Amino acid sequence: MLDVMSFAAGQWVAPDGSARLIESAVTGEPVARAGGPLDTEAMLRHAALGGAALREMGFHDRARMLKALALYLKERAEELHQLSYMTGATRTDGQIDIEGGITTMLVIASKGRREMPDAKVMLDGAPEMLSRQGTFRGQHIWVPRTGVAVHINAFNFPVWGMLEKLAPTLLAGMPAIVKPATATSYVTHAAMRMMVDSGLLPEGAVQMIAGGTGDLLDRLGAQDVVSFTGSAETALKLQGPLVRRGVRFIAEQDSLNASLLGPDAGPGSPEWDIFVREVRREITAKAGQKCTAIRRIMVPEVRVADVIGALEAALQVRIGAPDLEATQMGALVSRAQRTDVLEKAAAIGQHAGRVVGDPEHFEVEGADAQRGAFLPPMLYHAADPDASTVIHETEAFGPVSTVMGYRDLGHAVELMNRGGGALVASLITHDPEVATEVALGIAPWHGRIYVNDRCSAKEATGHGSPLPHMVHGGPGRAGGGEELGGIRGALHYMQRTALQGSPDMLSAIAGTWMEGAAESPAPDHPFQRRFGELEVGETLHTPAREVTLEDIEHFAEFTGDTFYAHMDEEAAAANPFFPGRVAHGYLLLSFAAGLFVQPDPGPVLANTGLDGLRFLKPVSPGDSISVRLTVLKKTRRTEEYGEVRWSVGLSNQDGEPVAEYELLTMVAY
Amino acid sequence: MLDVMSFAAGQWVAPDGSARLIESAVTGEPVARAGGPLDTEAMLRHAALGGAALREMGFHDRARMLKALALYLKERAEELHQLSYMTGATRTDGQIDIEGGITTMLVIASKGRREMPDAKVMLDGAPEMLSRQGTFRGQHIWVPRTGVAVHINAFNFPVWGMLEKLAPTLLAGMPAIVKPATATSYVTHAAMRMMVDSGLLPEGAVQMIAGGTGDLLDRLGAQDVVSFTGSAETALKLQGPLVRRGVRFIAEQDSLNASLLGPDAGPGSPEWDIFVREVRREITAKAGQKCTAIRRIMVPEVRVADVIGALEAALQVRIGAPDLEATQMGALVSRAQRTDVLEKAAAIGQHAGRVVGDPEHFEVEGADAQRGAFLPPMLYHAADPDASTVIHETEAFGPVSTVMGYRDLGHAVELMNRGGGALVASLITHDPEVATEVALGIAPWHGRIYVNDRCSAKEATGHGSPLPHMVHGGPGRAGGGEELGGIRGALHYMQRTALQGSPDMLSAIAGTWMEGAAESPAPDHPFQRRFGELEVGETLHTPAREVTLEDIEHFAEFTGDTFYAHMDEEAAAANPFFPGRVAHGYLLLSFAAGLFVQPDPGPVLANTGLDGLRFLKPVSPGDSISVRLTVLKKTRRTEEYGEVRWSVGLSNQDGEPVAEYELLTMVAY
Repeated sequence: MLDVMSFAAGQWVAPDGSARLIESAVTGEPVARAGGPLDTEAMLRHAALGGAALREMGFHDRARMLKALALYLKERAEELHQLSYMTGATRTDGQIDIEGGITTMLVIASKGRREMPDAKVMLDGAPEMLSRQGTFRGQHIWVPRTGVAVHINAFNFPVWGMLEKLAPTLLAGMPAIVKPATATSYVTHAAMRMMVDSGLLPEGAVQMIAGGTGDLLDRLGAQDVVSFTGSAETALKLQGPLVRRGVRFIAEQDSLNASLLGPDAGPGSPEWDIFVREVRREITAKAGQKCTAIRRIMVPEVRVADVIGALEAALQVRIGAPDLEATQMGALVSRAQRTDVLEKAAAIGQHAGRVVGDPEHFEVEGADAQRGAFLPPMLYHAADPDASTVIHETEAFGPVSTVMGYRDLGHAVELMNRGGGALVASLITHDPEVATEVALGIAPWHGRIYVNDRCSAKEATGHGSPLPHMVHGGPGRAGGGEELGGIRGALHYMQRTALQGSPDMLSAIAGTWMEGAAESPAPDHPFQRRFGELEVGETLHTPAREVTLEDIEHFAEFTGDTFYAHMDEEAAAANPFFPGRVAHGYLLLSFAAGLFVQPDPGPVLANTGLDGLRFLKPVSPGDSISVRLTVLKKTRRTEEYGEVRWSVGLSNQDGEPVAEYELLTMVAY
Repeated sequence: MLDVMSFAAGQWVAPDGSARLIESAVTGEPVARAGGPLDTEAMLRHAALGGAALREMGFHDRARMLKALALYLKERAEELHQLSYMTGATRTDGQIDIEGGITTMLVIASKGRREMPDAKVMLDGAPEMLSRQGTFRGQHIWVPRTGVAVHINAFNFPVWGMLEKLAPTLLAGMPAIVKPATATSYVTHAAMRMMVDSGLLPEGAVQMIAGGTGDLLDRLGAQDVVSFTGSAETALKLQGPLVRRGVRFIAEQDSLNASLLGPDAGPGSPEWDIFVREVRREITAKAGQKCTAIRRIMVPEVRVADVIGALEAALQVRIGAPDLEATQMGALVSRAQRTDVLEKAAAIGQHAGRVVGDPEHFEVEGADAQRGAFLPPMLYHAADPDASTVIHETEAFGPVSTVMGYRDLGHAVELMNRGGGALVASLITHDPEVATEVALGIAPWHGRIYVNDRCSAKEATGHGSPLPHMVHGGPGRAGGGEELGGIRGALHYMQRTALQGSPDMLSAIAGTWMEGAAESPAPDHPFQRRFGELEVGETLHTPAREVTLEDIEHFAEFTGDTFYAHMDEEAAAANPFFPGRVAHGYLLLSFAAGLFVQPDPGPVLANTGLDGLRFLKPVSPGDSISVRLTVLKKTRRTEEYGEVRWSVGLSNQDGEPVAEYELLTMVAY
């Protein structure tokens, strides 16, 4: 018997007499118990410590921490797999959960490093010019919320479900209290114990509740977040009182995901096979206990019989003990879940005929079908999909799906949207016009749209796989929440604030140099200063250089860019942008580099790129240009060097700006 | 007596026997009546027509429509001002409302043109590489929601309140039903009538309800949005049932905004004067009936007496008939509102002493103080601000504010955050360290932070002014919603969807060319093709050009960029990024232009900029480069020409990418 412990206020708390028994999905025998005393006030105090410690770190520090944590778990994945079998999960199911969760954390960590600043404050969008002279400007910033994130997770992915929420939460700088669903909490508990033992997380950054949440939710307030995954029914119960107290509530709940076979994809086409494969996988993987599984199968009316035939063959899978290699589909999580699925399937059965699978008659290998929570894949056919609401709104959270025919694409869009909001829909078609019409028709009702065809089939990741890069969540019935989507997922755990003030004030608060802010003169040529020595705002002003007509002609001849605006006075003057012949933009960039580059070996190693170049005013022969070069932002990249982003401004002899851009360089520490 | 009509399903509907009388704020006499029959089902059907028409337009079409609408209203502003006086608003108050609302719409229109695509679908972020070979990728998009936006507005800004919500809603592509607060609905009604009469909006794009909303809210669903401005109490009542049905609910409610005088800003300093001016304005403008008004005045403990003295003098304003030029503060909106303010002030008075203003004794010029809804500015002083919760949570929505002393900045932060979430806080200080410490301490609890000092004072727009560029909203008590913030405000009326598929599929659905997607060969040199002729995806491949050592040396000498990586084989090879001497990045850009530019006059008028340049692989002497130039996006800009954004890729003789960027050009239609 496994004891699922809470990790509360730095202590592991064992189950007590109030604990609930958890049964094995395979044998029906009790395998664990969960539930015990809970001092939620102490947990919140402890989380406050964790929050303070996390906020002391920057985004990149936290991203590095997540990467280390994920790698630590990766080495210990096998231990989790052994527990995972008891939940009914096959090895493949376990990989989605365990390796899938770890990879998700790695991707979020990597995106944090690449897309967030090496700082404690993240800018949101560009500075806003709020005044004529530029003495008053605006800048939006993101800062971590100062409360705690409570994650209420579903039973189906005890590891992925935890890690996909922890990664963005910790990256944002918020501590978390994880409340796994009891049925599979022994797997979550094992993973949580590893994370705690790793010593990689600051004290208070993570806690876990085994059993009920007690009065925890009643204690939350406007800096806290509750991220809920589960049924719409539970979500609705929780939401009201939380939202009333200003708690941010993110819900990911029921979803009647659809998959569409394009009218172009007849039997024998590559898309036909892709479609059958995707549907089969979504019905059988995790025994259909996936929030993204395909519940509604949309096919052209004339193909209905063929599709049912093909799926009937494809769904002949070997059901059995999850740890047997031959097993293709394992058990549901519990007998109670099995009963629930059968009830929902019966409701669907009132409006659709069952064409594949009989829960009373099917074979189970290596386990006792009467004691384990097994079910066969069950396929229904709704002959009149317009007539029934139940088939579009009843989620049987198991290996159950309904085929329905559509008359034309408009009808298909209508049927798909009748789900009332879903996490994902897939379109299997090789015709971009079909994909476009359906995708734009269903986009307002769907969080994700997955298109697959012969071109992408080899590398496509599957209808049902939420990827860390892409938003996971959907409107309406699906809960209206969003998770993941790269660093978008971290923003739910942060507050966006609009800053207004002088450039100096904004620069100080946001920790970055902003145009108009005071420049500090560089004490030495900046190319001779190391990463750690360069200060944000440090500025080099170069002498001026004249741009002669000879320069322009020479550059044209040398590069081959003999565009008329540089070569022909009359034609140039007829152009609405130019007063006459003007210098090439790239000539200006090149001369600018000539003005600010220090040629000797030094800490500045390479120019790696350039952003936001805008040519503001033409430069005519005889004009002079000079350059301002200011340190804008510094980002550590490797052990040896970091990225320095410079603001570059080119002005003419009258001090008028002629070009501006941001320059990227690698600079040694 | 003015009849405030509903504009429902294309018809103006007059008040009936159920209508409520509306009194003049100045005389207490009835001036208008509002309320009548409402066919909400017909309104929703009509809105659906409007939504379809708006979605047929692109973002830029809608932005142009908004600009025309704002200019139409601008010409008719005086008519609105005449009505506005009856609400108690002075000319200055009316300008905030009327000209402020029109300007807001103009800024949102302009930002829509500059920051959104000239298309029906908006991309969100960069493409995501989801596979090794690149046959399966991701792209997030935004599309308009297909329901209706119901705007429930507050009484204080009958015009601004409508326009600041309508602008982002219509820009997003959603139709709106506006429900103004009854007390000032005759002003909103007049502005709505102008908009309808303008003929600039598609049928069904806007409707208005005078009086109650009937069963409208009960009919809303997951594609609809309710944007509410008003009291927390009403927000809580509405929210539950709406959220339960998946309606997006945006609330902007109570807010106990604070202003802080920095410890550096003593009497006689410019910041002292700025502080007194800001506080005075926020107490008296609109008679304090602003959601952003300063309710809590935070000053160093040692300055409390001085600040009270200065404010007492500053608050000697002339109160009177709003249409008198001499009047500095008008009336509250109604006697009922006056009573409510006095009740709240009395509650504050339990915890703070009144130091300025006596509602029983003050002068009113040009109006009858007994019949109009007049009040004097009232200032309280909380001697022990830690002891009372009431002073931090009671919003007297009138000319009422409370001074409190802080011991140090940590204490100030704590007091400010005790508001439990606010729309705005201001920091009046000339010390960037003070501003930074306080701003970062309060940012999680505040939607906007306004810093002002001697450098920005001349151009600063005021503590209480929400600007269209900056987010307006706040966490916790302030409702947790966001409005405005440029195009951020439009996103609330849209759905974000994650697209996955092959580059061809993503390009088709998103209506843009994406790397990896099929290129169509340009039938002619693209520089010879007009804006309308250029097709997204159209691609030019240039011949190759060798980059010789002589080229590199010549370029170095010509431009002055003699960086050692180009000039010194040994030193270059010691650099971690280079195999030996390499070509200048700007040499590559310049040669690339030489390869793809067509020199003769033609539709391509100018290169205006460049984005996202990354150098991917060094180019050594003897390597060759060739260029791919693909049309990525087209945006109409003026009557004569539009912007074409090109994807540019440079490859070496082995086909390896060496540089990539996006190029901006202006092209004649």
